[in-house]
Amino acid sequence: MSKIILTGDRPTGKLHVGHYVGSLKRRVELQNSGEYDKIFIMIADAQALTDNADNPEKIRQNIIEVALDYLSCGLDPTKSTLFIQSMIPQLTELSFYYMNLVTVSRLQRNPTVKAEILMRNFETSIPVGFFTYPISQAADITAFKATLVPVGEDQLPMIEQTREIVRKFNSVYGEALVEPDVLLPDNKACLRLPGTDGKSKMSKSLNNCIYLSDTPEDVKKKIMGMYTDPDHLRVEDPGKVEGNSVFTYLDAFSKPEHFERYLSDYNCLEELKVHYMRGGLGDVKVKKFLNLVLQEELEPIRLRRKEYEKDIPEVYNILKKGSEAAEKVAAETLADVKRKMKINYFEDMDLINEQAQKYR
Amino acid sequence: MSKIILTGDRPTGKLHVGHYVGSLKRRVELQNSGEYDKIFIMIADAQALTDNADNPEKIRQNIIEVALDYLSCGLDPTKSTLFIQSMIPQLTELSFYYMNLVTVSRLQRNPTVKAEILMRNFETSIPVGFFTYPISQAADITAFKATLVPVGEDQLPMIEQTREIVRKFNSVYGEALVEPDVLLPDNKACLRLPGTDGKSKMSKSLNNCIYLSDTPEDVKKKIMGMYTDPDHLRVEDPGKVEGNSVFTYLDAFSKPEHFERYLSDYNCLEELKVHYMRGGLGDVKVKKFLNLVLQEELEPIRLRRKEYEKDIPEVYNILKKGSEAAEKVAAETLADVKRKMKINYFEDMDLINEQAQKYR
Repeated sequence: MSKIILTGDRPTGKLHVGHYVGSLKRRVELQNSGEYDKIFIMIADAQALTDNADNPEKIRQNIIEVALDYLSCGLDPTKSTLFIQSMIPQLTELSFYYMNLVTVSRLQRNPTVKAEILMRNFETSIPVGFFTYPISQAADITAFKATLVPVGEDQLPMIEQTREIVRKFNSVYGEALVEPDVLLPDNKACLRLPGTDGKSKMSKSLNNCIYLSDTPEDVKKKIMGMYTDPDHLRVEDPGKVEGNSVFTYLDAFSKPEHFERYLSDYNCLEELKVHYMRGGLGDVKVKKFLNLVLQEELEPIRLRRKEYEKDIPEVYNILKKGSEAAEKVAAETLADVKRKMKINYFEDMDLINEQAQKYR
Repeated sequence: MSKIILTGDRPTGKLHVGHYVGSLKRRVELQNSGEYDKIFIMIADAQALTDNADNPEKIRQNIIEVALDYLSCGLDPTKSTLFIQSMIPQLTELSFYYMNLVTVSRLQRNPTVKAEILMRNFETSIPVGFFTYPISQAADITAFKATLVPVGEDQLPMIEQTREIVRKFNSVYGEALVEPDVLLPDNKACLRLPGTDGKSKMSKSLNNCIYLSDTPEDVKKKIMGMYTDPDHLRVEDPGKVEGNSVFTYLDAFSKPEHFERYLSDYNCLEELKVHYMRGGLGDVKVKKFLNLVLQEELEPIRLRRKEYEKDIPEVYNILKKGSEAAEKVAAETLADVKRKMKINYFEDMDLINEQAQKYR
């Protein structure tokens, strides 16, 4: 069986280093591994609209940002299909029919949806589109016959919902859909980077993100102002590395070669941590090191971005071509789905002949 | 402004005389009045699937039955656009975006949905597709920019839901949708014919329907076995006309000219009723009269049906052409909707130029 990946992001803002370590970097590795037959990367604008219906302009403006971030990180339109969700009308048609296979109470029990409803303070005013987005997500995944969906553990219930829909569809109408598996992150430490203020979530509104598109100066400034250990007041004090954003970032980004290059007094991160915990190591020194490490990681991304920024219409064109390619695949799946559901009446000569026979 | 009608039926069975007096007859009159710019008549297969997902074959088989019933009653494909809902993919796309404009609690409050959930014994296992069908119905109505929707009073909350979606959409994204008005039945007596067994609802499973496609013999047999007044045991007994199916049917179908032709001892239905209530009038006499009246009404329908039954592929062809015409209209509305929502990125030169400018 083909190995097909579907993944993507909601275009509600520029992508930050949290997205990078959490998914983008791995996505590029998967793409370049040559192990996958097809990789579909979706800019999920339609999904973003489910809880931004009043502000479509935000989504509209951020599509190009996400596309630039993708391309800058090394997602390659000749290897991966980059596309925009709303450009694939077949997805809404699949959603529509899948909605008959899921009960309202099943959706209400979805823990991911429950958590997200809480997070968004929706309470009783949950938009129906948001409430039903696990079904829409099943349409996204199955439209491309994805066998693997890279997700964090918090998203497992969503994929389980898709698997249930696939099983239900195949048992009611006949085998047409592929049950996807999850591809969990390989490095738990990288799952979620905290904000520069130490808060567990990076968020535009908290102004605590380092964006992939930040200038070197901005990155440095953000790192130098980063949250560390609030009790580590003097250099000689012992410091905590747990919950210390600078060290969490180093966990995610630093490699032994960085020490050789920029901080040769230490062989590895472990040694640096031990010194910090013992006392006698200042935050500024560690932050300067993190800055060098992060700049090294971000520099090629920044350079590629500059190139793509020179020809914005071409970036839209890449998305357009990707969307056309994605639509072709989704259209095949939908045609198959409708054949299986037998709602392809005008092509269904068996039906037409059988009915004609009845009245002869 | 154009006067545009949208109406239709779920293809879950052959249509019966209840459908005829409740909507079909009026629909033909509206069509032939020449007062309406466009009339769209939808065979709502996708909606029927929302509570028949396990039995698509029922829907599939009944599409031709409903189409034959339509054509037999005088719906004319040169005057009205007869089409199949599932052939119009734009409807699912509109539904998808409208779902962001309605809250879950708003749907839960819809009295029509509440009543139908009760009727279907869904309790907690309501399919999401069924739960959200007021939104799908808004898509149907607005896709064709319908200004008038002929419905019974029980459907008023559904149309109100559509009107709310239209207002919300137009206020958030800009004027694109038309707020429909309801076209209530002109004759309350005709609203709902009881079953031949006196039960308030005609239903295939109760075997109490007179179908438009029944043979004259079947119709006669059903009428002669019809529920009347259970206390009217002997001819000389006084009888009740209220709740007496035979008289309810006469209310719906008989005209003064029928008396002249078939029962000239009476000038009108009122006289017949008075005699029945007084006593001395047997059920058989009244039933024979109803049979003559109903046969006269059904005969031209039956004859037209015979003609259409000779060429079933042509009936499918009529639906195909109608669906193509309907799709064109829906595609225009959808394009307008997407322009207003500004999710037409690839055509949106303002966006592309503005973003290019930003990076210059």
